[in-house]
Amino acid sequence: MARVAFIGLGVMGYPMAGHLAAKGDHDVTVYNRTTEKSEKWVAEYGGSFAATPKEAAKDADFVFACVGNDDDLRSVTLGEHGAFSAMRPGSIFIDNTTASARIARELANSAEDGGFGFLDAPVSGGQAGAENGVLTVMAGGKQGVFDRAVPIIECYARMVGLMGDVGAGQLTKMMNQICIAGLMQGLSEAIHFGKNSGLDIEKVIEVISKGAAGSWQMENRYKTMDDGFYDHGFAVDWMRKDLSICLDEAKKNGTSLPVTALVDQYYADVQTMGGNRWDTSSLLARLEKFGE
Amino acid sequence: MARVAFIGLGVMGYPMAGHLAAKGDHDVTVYNRTTEKSEKWVAEYGGSFAATPKEAAKDADFVFACVGNDDDLRSVTLGEHGAFSAMRPGSIFIDNTTASARIARELANSAEDGGFGFLDAPVSGGQAGAENGVLTVMAGGKQGVFDRAVPIIECYARMVGLMGDVGAGQLTKMMNQICIAGLMQGLSEAIHFGKNSGLDIEKVIEVISKGAAGSWQMENRYKTMDDGFYDHGFAVDWMRKDLSICLDEAKKNGTSLPVTALVDQYYADVQTMGGNRWDTSSLLARLEKFGE
Repeated sequence: MARVAFIGLGVMGYPMAGHLAAKGDHDVTVYNRTTEKSEKWVAEYGGSFAATPKEAAKDADFVFACVGNDDDLRSVTLGEHGAFSAMRPGSIFIDNTTASARIARELANSAEDGGFGFLDAPVSGGQAGAENGVLTVMAGGKQGVFDRAVPIIECYARMVGLMGDVGAGQLTKMMNQICIAGLMQGLSEAIHFGKNSGLDIEKVIEVISKGAAGSWQMENRYKTMDDGFYDHGFAVDWMRKDLSICLDEAKKNGTSLPVTALVDQYYADVQTMGGNRWDTSSLLARLEKFGE
Repeated sequence: MARVAFIGLGVMGYPMAGHLAAKGDHDVTVYNRTTEKSEKWVAEYGGSFAATPKEAAKDADFVFACVGNDDDLRSVTLGEHGAFSAMRPGSIFIDNTTASARIARELANSAEDGGFGFLDAPVSGGQAGAENGVLTVMAGGKQGVFDRAVPIIECYARMVGLMGDVGAGQLTKMMNQICIAGLMQGLSEAIHFGKNSGLDIEKVIEVISKGAAGSWQMENRYKTMDDGFYDHGFAVDWMRKDLSICLDEAKKNGTSLPVTALVDQYYADVQTMGGNRWDTSSLLARLEKFGE
């Protein structure tokens, strides 16, 4: 029986830890900043909860984290009650947080000093993907560590790829988000144009969605966009966090991302509209409100 | 036997007219500005060619046009030797040109005066789609006219949709191009970022292409973009023509398209690089050259 710890029971981590408990022969201990969530999780899935990340990680073979940002991640790993001080040699730390490539490298170095493995392993697929256990995982790290981690990661993922050395998982996730930013603004401008032209958006999408303009976002979001429904999906606050990581990293490697930076500012407009938790497709709501 | 005329044997029109000749019982007469192209076409497909659009359209049941822009279209329809003066009552004029919604309405009015039908019917699917007879056709016009035209349009199309009244086909094509502009810049920024980060682009696309960042352009263009190969696909000159129609129409209906307008300027940069005939994915070449 593998001993597993999971740190961070947010909208993603909660169901991901649940899949680890439900599938395979795993003894799961969870940690969350607010204990109520841990208690609820244990009531639902069994296992146990710990008072600190350090306590959760003690004796674990695999420790997962899915927290908010670099600072949270540093706190639950290297902080006073962080997991790293309790990791035993030969174990593996799998970080599902979307964070910077820099902190991935920093944590991988610490892990190496401690004799345990580290993978940066951000996910895509959103809350629905987490709940259904069909996430995509983009990992960075050593091949041997990756090979040992894949079977357990597959409890909550449909696709798991090793993208390169440590940090490559985070960089891949950034490419993903950069694609989405430009694509989503293009789709929003198109639907805005179409509505102003009196077109039947559903008819249009039916005809163009399989061709050169087609995208996952078009197929999965056109209807809610046409209806002005944004209270679902991947939240603007999270997207801005991710885009901030992209723009920081781009500064470091000398890449200019003009439209990504612009769309990030458009998301700032959406936040001023109270759309912090709206789906990223709410760029259309911004166009409709500000008209530009 | 239906008598068919086809006006404009460019990279799209030439094979489209070929499919009309090869499928069904059609007697096809072609017209092209340069006669050499007409002679070559007749040698390849049979049928005959005419010296003017008017002569080609005489006695025809269906007259197709696929020319460069609004001015060309006005010339081959309403000009001195234009087709409209020869169209017989009950026949149908099908315009496959990507042109403005305004000229579609203007031509539909003239057609109504002449007692014949008119459809604006721009296509997508590119040169390969035309050669393989699998284009997507976005039509605008009357239901009865559309119903009579669908069987013959299907000679070169896989999907034919009636989007609404006259002009709706052109407006749909504009939505298509607006989507592509934003999406293509996002994809280019992502690949630029990934290359600068040392990622293996093929590996990345394999993992992210089925998810929220996925698109037709990603699946069909990432490889050539990664290789810096742009001598294929949908040319920047044509894209700028189409975006100019989009931006004109947007001005008329009060729609602001900030990223579409910006990407149009980026394509102007590509033209200064000599990329007039490069594929629209050459936005990546622009980023790599100018670094911003």
